[in-house]
Parts: sequence; structure tokens; C-alpha cells
Amino acid sequence: MAQQERAIRTRRVILEAAAAIFDERGYESTTIAEVLERAEVTKGALYFHFPSKGDLARGVLDAAVTTDGVRPQALKLQEMIDIMLLLAYRLPREPMLSAALRMAIDLQSRRQFGTAWPDWIELLTGILRDAKSRGEVLPHVDEAEIARMLVCTWTGVRVVSEGLPGGCDLPREVAVLLQILLPAVATPTVLPRIEVSAARAAHLYDDMPAWRAESARAEAVGLTH
Amino acid sequence: MAQQERAIRTRRVILEAAAAIFDERGYESTTIAEVLERAEVTKGALYFHFPSKGDLARGVLDAAVTTDGVRPQALKLQEMIDIMLLLAYRLPREPMLSAALRMAIDLQSRRQFGTAWPDWIELLTGILRDAKSRGEVLPHVDEAEIARMLVCTWTGVRVVSEGLPGGCDLPREVAVLLQILLPAVATPTVLPRIEVSAARAAHLYDDMPAWRAESARAEAVGLTH
Repeated sequence: MAQQERAIRTRRVILEAAAAIFDERGYESTTIAEVLERAEVTKGALYFHFPSKGDLARGVLDAAVTTDGVRPQALKLQEMIDIMLLLAYRLPREPMLSAALRMAIDLQSRRQFGTAWPDWIELLTGILRDAKSRGEVLPHVDEAEIARMLVCTWTGVRVVSEGLPGGCDLPREVAVLLQILLPAVATPTVLPRIEVSAARAAHLYDDMPAWRAESARAEAVGLTH
Repeated sequence: MAQQERAIRTRRVILEAAAAIFDERGYESTTIAEVLERAEVTKGALYFHFPSKGDLARGVLDAAVTTDGVRPQALKLQEMIDIMLLLAYRLPREPMLSAALRMAIDLQSRRQFGTAWPDWIELLTGILRDAKSRGEVLPHVDEAEIARMLVCTWTGVRVVSEGLPGGCDLPREVAVLLQILLPAVATPTVLPRIEVSAARAAHLYDDMPAWRAESARAEAVGLTH
């Protein structure tokens, strides 16, 4: 068990080192030697977990679709908003997440490894369907179309804002976007009950250690969360 | 005069050849030799118009902010919508436009040459201010914030949709986006009078030759348009 935990930790360290370099300079120009140096692990450990550089890329992309830190809410739409707000707070702080986006918008890496966008669209479509069956979503809304639009616009806010002079306060930008889009999705009775703000994003982030501890406890006693 | 026209045409041919290669493979991996071969012009002509590869990049970016083909409308908001719809129709058809976007999302080119996004935001902010002064825009709307959001989301729709399996019908995607965003911008009396559809994008595109001919005539008799 202790050995297994160590292996999981080593794998994570390698992946985070690789993500940090992918994020800085792109997948193409990253070498295994640099990942080794940054991760401070042996060559043997690296090749055990990731036989090729491509496996590192796939590992980063797999980690990019995450709902970690999001707690169940009375409104399914609030859960969806929380997922997008929390991601906006985490992405500029976690190279693993921003490296995945960097690889998705790079033509060469995209052709080789695809992107996490279809998985994100599927995830949001499922939540929107669930929300609709509970009467939270306007009846004429096409869930897959809105999910796709949410992924497109969220990404655009990140990509463009990052390139503008003065940089980008991503949680604030994403909150503004969601405030504009939400009236096209939520029913009038549900709309005022949903909280969309940069402050909520920060709160969700601060709550992550507690969420992680609870998840670990639940897992230890065999509960799913 | 004939000589000047020929020079303008040669400059355009070179720029379009460069844009096509930037668009396919990125600015970094493009060589001047390839541009020469694609443009079928002499080395002297190329260096006369563009002393360095960087000048080609700047030339492409300069051409990326365009309202060509957009006619004055009774509603300023309709003009703004037309600019964004027409761009959605033109971009997949014109390497000059898609190369500019490709360079903007590439970290290396962006650091070197900047992007056209601030110019786009300025252009749309101006139109929104004008529209507001005519009572077309909701009073609480922050024009610069909405302009920024429009540029972010338009770009996101292009970047993500292009990477999704099944490709992308950009005018349709952009029309859906604008239909969702517009109620957050336009006053209730103006909203139903604005046409936002992929069909309108196609119509604007088909009208471009006529628009060009009229602009050329107006210019010849010294009118501004």
C-alpha cells in the first residue's frame, strides 16, 4: 500500500513536471531530458510510468477534465456553473490544466492527441439534461448546443484575455460571460437563485482541501462520491 | 498609375502566399523561399515590399481587422452583427484572416507581433457606444466589456469548433452565439428588428463584389464610404 501510494505520487510528480514545460514552451520543443531534470526522478521511474513522450501528453489531457472540488447542489445548474468557475480559478494556477489547453489550441499536438473538448461537452450536456428534467432549464434549449457554446466561449475568454495587454483575471471574465449566457439557459424562477461570481470561484478553490479530505475519507470507507 | 496598381497587386499576391503558408504550418516554420515559390514573384519584388519575414507577419495582422462588405444600416447593432457574421463566413475561405488568428493564438508569434484583438475590441466598442447613443443598447451595458466578450467568444467558437470532430460551420456557430448574447445587449424594442442568421452571413458574402465595385467608384469620385 505504501509502495503503491509512492508510485502514484511519483507518477503525479512526473506528469506535473511535463505539464509545466509543455505549458511554457509547447509539447513539440519539450525533451524527455528536461522532464527528468524538472521532476528529479530516475530515468527508470519515468519510463516505467510513461514509455514515451506521447504518453506524457495523453496523461496531461486525461487530467484536464475534472470536477474535483465541486459539491452537490440543490440546483444542477449551480453545479455546472461551479465546475466552470472553479476551473477558471484553477487553470492559471495549475500548469496541468493550462498545458492541456495549450496543447488543444496547438495544431500539431491537436492532430496527434486530440483535445479534451468533446469530453467537456459531453459532461456539460449530461448536467444540462439532468437540470432540464428538474425544470431548471428553458424548454426550447438544445442541451448539446448550449454545452458546446459554453465550452467554446469559456475557452475563447481564456485564449483571448491571456493575449490582451494587462493580462487576465480569468475567474472575473468567466463570471461575466456566464452572467450574460445564463438567462438564455435557466428558467426565470431558477435564474435569481444561481450564484455566479468571481468570489464564488475563490471560495470553491479555498474549499478544495476540505473537499479532498472528505473525498479521501469517503473512498476509504468504500463510499462513492 | 498602371505601375502603382501593379505594385499593389504584387504586394497582395505575396501577402496572400505568405498567409496561406502561415495558416498551414505556422509562422515559425515558414521560410522566405517557400513564400517566393508560392507567390511566383522575384526575390527583388518580395524584398522591395517586405524587407523581412516579420514584415510579412505584420502585413497579415494589419489586414485582419476589416469591415469590408458591410453596408450602413438603420440600426448600428445590425452593422456590428454584420461585421461578425461576415467575418465568420470569410475566415474559413480566406487564409489571410485565418492566418492572423493562427498567429494570435500561437505563443511565439503573439509575443513577437501582438494580435489584432485590441483593434477589434476598440472597433466594436465604438460601434456599441454609437448604438447606445441612439437608444439601441440597454442602459446598464458596459460597451468595452461587451466588446471584449464578443471578441473572446467569437474567437473561442472558431478555435474550439475547428478542433472538434466533424469540423465547423462557422457562420452557423457564430449566429447561434450572437442570438444568445444579443438579448443581453439590445433594448427590447430593437432586439426583434435585428437579423442574426447564417443565411445573412452568406448573403453579405455574395454581396461583396457589388460592395467592392461601389466602393471603388465612390473612391474614384473622391467620396468616402
